[in-house]
Amino acid sequence: MELNNKIPQATAKRLPLYYRFLNNLHIQGKTRVSSKELSEAVKVDSATIRRDFSYFGALGRKGYGYNVEYLLEFFRKTLNQDTVSNVALIGVGNLGTAFLHYNFSKSNNTKIIRAYDANPDVIGTEVGHVLIEDINQLEETLANIDVAILTVPGSAAQSVTDKLVKAGVKGILNFTPARITVPTEVRVHHIDLTVELQSLIYFVEHYPMDKK
Amino acid sequence: MELNNKIPQATAKRLPLYYRFLNNLHIQGKTRVSSKELSEAVKVDSATIRRDFSYFGALGRKGYGYNVEYLLEFFRKTLNQDTVSNVALIGVGNLGTAFLHYNFSKSNNTKIIRAYDANPDVIGTEVGHVLIEDINQLEETLANIDVAILTVPGSAAQSVTDKLVKAGVKGILNFTPARITVPTEVRVHHIDLTVELQSLIYFVEHYPMDKK
Repeated sequence: MELNNKIPQATAKRLPLYYRFLNNLHIQGKTRVSSKELSEAVKVDSATIRRDFSYFGALGRKGYGYNVEYLLEFFRKTLNQDTVSNVALIGVGNLGTAFLHYNFSKSNNTKIIRAYDANPDVIGTEVGHVLIEDINQLEETLANIDVAILTVPGSAAQSVTDKLVKAGVKGILNFTPARITVPTEVRVHHIDLTVELQSLIYFVEHYPMDKK
Repeated sequence: MELNNKIPQATAKRLPLYYRFLNNLHIQGKTRVSSKELSEAVKVDSATIRRDFSYFGALGRKGYGYNVEYLLEFFRKTLNQDTVSNVALIGVGNLGTAFLHYNFSKSNNTKIIRAYDANPDVIGTEVGHVLIEDINQLEETLANIDVAILTVPGSAAQSVTDKLVKAGVKGILNFTPARITVPTEVRVHHIDLTVELQSLIYFVEHYPMDKK
């Protein structure tokens, strides 16, 4: 069961979500799940779930649903859950500290193994069992890490990004308010907390949801 | 210039992004902007920008572009930037603390005015000039607040959500790993940091970007 590389990106984006929920079911001892149950849990409509699953060859059986263990095994291979993905975090302010304490350790094999900051009071300390290193040594010390989480102040976002690109990083999760510019071979996912909040407020005010 | 309520949600989602960038231009003293410049800054393709802007009656002139002040005035009204939107924050851990320190104050009129936690050591203290109140009094004290940011542990997400709904909250920005269930009249935007990171890693490994 090999993942077809041509599945739509929208489908690929939902894979970690499905994985997380199926893993919870498995822990609870459940062996099968219907697309309706999945739909209610992950808040994706069941037609979309069925279409997504068909892309990777998992066809639910009517009146039975999907086999949890089969799906989990499939997703685990697909998402490389069996190998640990090493991540760097740049900027150990409040948000960076939150990430280091959380450190993704409970739910998957993604791990922040290096962290950098510019503040001499912070460099050399440990936060969430990760040693904070000097951001000025980033290019020399950051090796074999593909993905970085950017939690520096917006004013430092582009200069730090340039360092990350030079160090060979291929993906940046940008939590700063700044839009950053990278070479085409580097992928950026941007989560602007202010924009997220403003758009929620905008939707609440302008598109009130109807009571059913 | 009244906003047509029927603009697509995808367009509405980009409004805060446009607003932020145009405001920066205005501060820098710029009076006009081309869709190409806008496109490069906000990383949205220029055909999409032109289509978005046409929904609210702003038509760029060839060789001139868009009038920054006109657009800004329009967005300001549309996004209610002239009135302060009051927000509550529930859960003053590391992530909640990051929000309170940041408090959205620099870039817009969205403000966290109430914050709640369950920890007796934290209740009664101030974080980012906001008094931390007892989460058990949430229903009694949370009045006239439409939007809440949820940064509690995943295990508490649903019970706190139920309190927020009872208190009349209309929108929840959910930063917990839990998917929460709400009545149809309440809107939830979910930002699962683990899923965001996992999907970035997945994209980096499976959909490498080509060098141009």
